[in-house]
Parts: sequence; C-alpha cells; structure tokens
Amino acid sequence: MNHPLMDSKPETPYLLLNRSKSEHNINRLKRHLNDLDVPLRPHVKTAKSLEVAQMLFPDGPGPITVSTLAEAEFFAAAGYKDILYAVGIAPNKLNRVAQLRSEGVDLVVLLDSAEQAEALAQFCTSNRASIPTLIEIDCDGHRGGIAPDSPELLHVATLITNGSAEVRGVLTHAGESYSCFTDADRTEAAENERQTAVKAAERLRAAGHAAPVVSIGSTPTAHATKDLTGVTEVRAGNFVFFDLVMAGNGVCDVTDLALSVVTTVIGHREDKGWIMTDAGWMATSSDKGTSSQPVNQYFGLVATRDGALIPDLVMIDATQEHGALAMRPGTDRPLPEIPVGTEVRILPIHACATASQHDVYRVISKDDGPIEAIWNRTHGW
Amino acid sequence: MNHPLMDSKPETPYLLLNRSKSEHNINRLKRHLNDLDVPLRPHVKTAKSLEVAQMLFPDGPGPITVSTLAEAEFFAAAGYKDILYAVGIAPNKLNRVAQLRSEGVDLVVLLDSAEQAEALAQFCTSNRASIPTLIEIDCDGHRGGIAPDSPELLHVATLITNGSAEVRGVLTHAGESYSCFTDADRTEAAENERQTAVKAAERLRAAGHAAPVVSIGSTPTAHATKDLTGVTEVRAGNFVFFDLVMAGNGVCDVTDLALSVVTTVIGHREDKGWIMTDAGWMATSSDKGTSSQPVNQYFGLVATRDGALIPDLVMIDATQEHGALAMRPGTDRPLPEIPVGTEVRILPIHACATASQHDVYRVISKDDGPIEAIWNRTHGW
Repeated sequence: MNHPLMDSKPETPYLLLNRSKSEHNINRLKRHLNDLDVPLRPHVKTAKSLEVAQMLFPDGPGPITVSTLAEAEFFAAAGYKDILYAVGIAPNKLNRVAQLRSEGVDLVVLLDSAEQAEALAQFCTSNRASIPTLIEIDCDGHRGGIAPDSPELLHVATLITNGSAEVRGVLTHAGESYSCFTDADRTEAAENERQTAVKAAERLRAAGHAAPVVSIGSTPTAHATKDLTGVTEVRAGNFVFFDLVMAGNGVCDVTDLALSVVTTVIGHREDKGWIMTDAGWMATSSDKGTSSQPVNQYFGLVATRDGALIPDLVMIDATQEHGALAMRPGTDRPLPEIPVGTEVRILPIHACATASQHDVYRVISKDDGPIEAIWNRTHGW
Repeated sequence: MNHPLMDSKPETPYLLLNRSKSEHNINRLKRHLNDLDVPLRPHVKTAKSLEVAQMLFPDGPGPITVSTLAEAEFFAAAGYKDILYAVGIAPNKLNRVAQLRSEGVDLVVLLDSAEQAEALAQFCTSNRASIPTLIEIDCDGHRGGIAPDSPELLHVATLITNGSAEVRGVLTHAGESYSCFTDADRTEAAENERQTAVKAAERLRAAGHAAPVVSIGSTPTAHATKDLTGVTEVRAGNFVFFDLVMAGNGVCDVTDLALSVVTTVIGHREDKGWIMTDAGWMATSSDKGTSSQPVNQYFGLVATRDGALIPDLVMIDATQEHGALAMRPGTDRPLPEIPVGTEVRILPIHACATASQHDVYRVISKDDGPIEAIWNRTHGW
C-alpha cells in the first residue's frame, strides 16, 4: 500500500534517503564488528524509523539503543524487546520504564550517580520491580560518567543492589573521538574506551556484581576499533546515514552520505553572489558542527538533484525558511548558473539533527532514481 | 475538553508558555502600532498556534503572515482568509497557492526576480488564475529583494502584469536590524526600511501599478519605528514570545521571555562544574544566535521551575538528549547545588527554533502557577 504522502515529485523542502548508501554503511560496520566477533546494538536515535531498523535487522528485531522513552515505546510496539535507554535516568521516568518492562521489554537504564542509584533502588523496592542498570563510565571527560577507578563506582553499585535493581554492567561513550581526525587517533580512542569499560566491569565483578554487559561505542570508535576483548556490545547510530561532520573527521567519504534535503532555487542575489533556496534552518537544522573542524561546510554542501556534488558551492547562511548558497570563501571557481525552479540537494552537517526536522524520509535506491517509498519517523519524548 | 496530553506534572523535557507574558508582549506592540495608526500583520511562523493567534486577534481572524504553505492551509482552515506568504515563491508551489485562493483565501505571494515573475505570469495565464504579488525590496543587503531604485523593479512589475497576476505592492524586511544594539540604531533601521519601501511603491505607482500595499517589518524595527507614513502594514513574529537574542539586542528584557523548556537534572560532573539535564539540542534547538552578540548565552539561561533566573548559570553544552549547565566563564559565583530530579527551565536563544522542536505548548498564566492548557503547534511544509 502506498504511503498517503506518496508523490512522484513532492514539494520542496523534503528529506531524501538513498537506501543503497545506507545499506552500504550498515554492511561496512557489521562486517567490521563481525570480524571482531562482537554484536552491534545500533542507536536508533539517528533514524527513528522502523524501516531503517529493518535494514539493520533484516531477520527480525535485535538489540537497540534509544535516546528517549518515546523511541523505546515506538520500537517495543514493533517487536523490539531488547532495549537500552542510554540517557541518564531521571527519577520521574521510572514509572514509564517499569510499564515497558511489565510488557515484556528488557529495557535497561543508565545512571552515573549515587542520587540516581538511590532513587532507582527506592522505586524498585516500593514498586516490587527490578530494573537492570548500566553504570556510565567516563573514558575521556566528554560528558557524564564515573571514573573507572573511583570509589564512587562501587558505592553506586552497592546502592543499586540495596534495592531490587540489578547492576547489568557498564557503558562508555567516547565522545571526544569526534575530535579525532586520523584513523590512528580514533583507534587509540577506541582502545582507551575499551580498556576503561573493561577495567570498570572487572572492579564491579571483583566486588561481587555480575555485571555481564560491557557496552562501548560511538560512530568514530566503532569503525576504528581493532580489539574488542572483554566488550560485549558496540553502540553506534550516526553511521546509518553519515554526515559532513563524520566526513570531515575522515570516518567516511562525502559520497557515503545517505541523506540530503531537496530544495528549490527561488532567487538570486548577484551582487552578493547568493543563490536563494526554500530550505532554511527549519529544513536543515541550525547545527554548524563543522565550524570547529579544519574545513567549515557551513549549513551543508550542495549537490545536483541527482546527487553530483557541485564543487565549492555551500549553503552559507539560513533563516527559518530561506537558504543562501554561495561559493566557498577563497575559491576561484565562479558561482554556477542555477535557474529559479531548479531542485538541488543539501548534504547534512549533522544527520541526527537534520533528520529530526522532518516527519518522513522519501526513499530512493540510486541517486538518479525515482522516489520508491516514504518511511515515517517517530519523534518527541 | 481537556487535551489528551493534559497532565499536571508532565515528563521533561517539555515546552512551557507563560501566556500572561505573551499577552503583555502582544499588547506592547499593538499599542505602539495603534499610536502610529498602522495595522499589524503578525508572522505566525514563530508560534504556529491557533491559540496564540487568538491572543493576537481576540475578536476573530485578522491578517497574518506565514512562512510555509502548510501554515497557510492550517490557518485558512481556522478562518484566516487574509494571508501573506512571505517567502519568495517557487514555481512548483503555485498550484497549492491557486487552490487556496479558489477556496476564498486572499493569499498573496512574494517574489524578487524576473524569473519568478515570468513563471507566475505564465501560471496565471495558463490556469486563468489571478495571484496577487508583493515585490520584495532590499533595504539593507540582508537577504533577498530588489534595490528600490533599480530598473529591475519596474521590469519585474511589468512581467507580473503581462500575465493576469497583480502587483499588490512591496515588502521589505530589515534583517540587519538584528545587529542593532541601541534604540537609536533600531529607529534608524526602521526609518530606512520605511523610506526604502515607500520609495519603491511610489516608483511602481508612477509607472501605473496600483501597488496599494507597503509592508514592512521585523521584530526590532516594529518596536522602534516612530513614523510609518506611507506604510500600510507592519509584520513581526518573534515578539509574541521574545528570546535571548532579542533581550541581548535590547528589544525586550529577559523577564519578558514567555517561553522556556522545562528539564530535569539527571546528574552532576563536579570535576567539570557541570549539572547534567535531560534537555539536549533536541529540546532547545542547536541555535546559538547569541554567540555573535556581546554576551554569549550559549544554549540558554537557566531559571528555577518557577521562573526565577539563577544568576550566571547557563546551558553551556548540548548533545541530542543531554544538556550541561555550568557557571558562565569568568564569574565568581559558585555552582548552585541542584539535586538530581529537580526541574529547571531553560530560556530560549531563539524562540522560533526552540518552539519548532516541540508539538505542543504547556500553558501557564503565572510563573509559579499550574499548567492550565495544552496548545498544539502545526509544522512541516
């Protein structure tokens, strides 16, 4: 049955997904982790789509990572029963967690403080519930987490098991690996991530906790790791689409990017060297994540509607519903002539952010092929 | 009837709207424009909400400005029949425009090029339609538009009327006024905006076009203008909520901000001086519009759940579903103790962007009052 929005030539701006590129990206990481004999627990926060999840799990639902309970509920309803909620648990969300667990979902939560552990233990005791928990370990000072050698680690684990909650294991996220620009640096970050997580798990086990799970991951380290000894699962999300931040880091090529925003040229400002389009930040997001990289891609690179990159043309500025395309500062190339009404593509700076501005993916199998399907996204909390 | 999501203590993150502050902001601009005897055509792209529009038009639908045809269709269905679509028209959107006009909506489009004018004229001739058009005039080099004294202006007008389209008038947007930091500079920008638009309209009239409409506006200039001679309507959108960009410019006070994101503290990183929350960029947007102002507010200022500003505490960093609160760099104030589970508010950098991350507003009448209503937002294109 066709999607109600199915239209051979939809109005711009809209989000385009090349599923062959996505499959290529998925197969690349799966092969790599298969060689290292550790399963992938993909983070579905990037795509928030059942059809993209089916590309990850062609044989039926597998283990996933989510960033919101709305994602957990959405995927659970579609048969995903092994779910890690990888954002530090707020005490007021435990009711919804317990509800999902009572429906047969093995939903695991994350925490990194005595306060959270006490709230969890108290909730489990009061509600005669058992909620398994990973303890977040800090491997690089990027975000949250307990240092692997800190006394706090064992203290938190004890607090968890004082209630009827369970220490399922440890989790790290090598957030600083987004600042690595060589394979060697990423491999080093991955090895540090692994060693940190394994060390923390071993301390917990020595103190009598089962802690069977050692969960590591980030898109940069997942691709660069060469040794996963002691690791039981790898998380990554962005890799299903990739984006200009990941291309700027060298994790992928620009040609691997599976996602783009299709936009129409609506005018020209010849005095400024601008081509105006109908895709502003509402369509691309305001994320300017490459502005701190060696090459600033502004709001995105520009390609033809059929996916051929237009050299040195960038989306240089955005208001809510206007984009301005211009030649990259410093280039000698002239601004190409692109008439009003022409559709072009904007390659995303940050796939998670760009996708979140849209309700659906319009899906193609090759860059110059027709739109074959429309896939829904979920959203909210 | 209660909204299906109505809940006295909703789960974070969610978007909170103090409707009294919004009414105060609306009344302030209405009084000002009333004194100058020119009607307001509010831009509904900020709120995208029928209930907020009702605060603007308590006596029933009035003239509005929209940024997408989805907004035009949404408000038309609710009785708004006088609509300006203030983004340069893409030829492929004319069918939807004609459809709305055939349903009795006086939908006016915008253009600034010969190419658009030719496409519009051809469409109108082929479809025996008449579509009224404003010509966008550039008053400060900020975005699109034709220079008021350019030969292009009369050429474009002639092309429009070669078909059965109509030159309804001119429109300017003083986008550069967002870079003004004093009332005097904003008043000067407003006067320049007025003079530019009036001059362009007079040239069109001298050439035989009726051009009855002279539409100007931006939130900064709408509040600063002292003379609207020759202007027939003022557009502004952001003022219904205001935000930290507008407060940084001096257009409003921080206490005027009607919108905030409520978030829960989920952890602490004492070594880094961070308080972690469950509102990342998915809840606040990635807009960092104050980073180019004298005072950088990062991802937003922080207030207690009851709206009392916590001095020098800012949301300093964000990932998709994590926020990091920290003391403003350089301050001597210590980080306050805010336990896990505590709710705080994040005041938005850019209200249009923050609101667009949410489906609904949870509405209060005073900062320490209960949630009284849930108002829907529309979205998409």
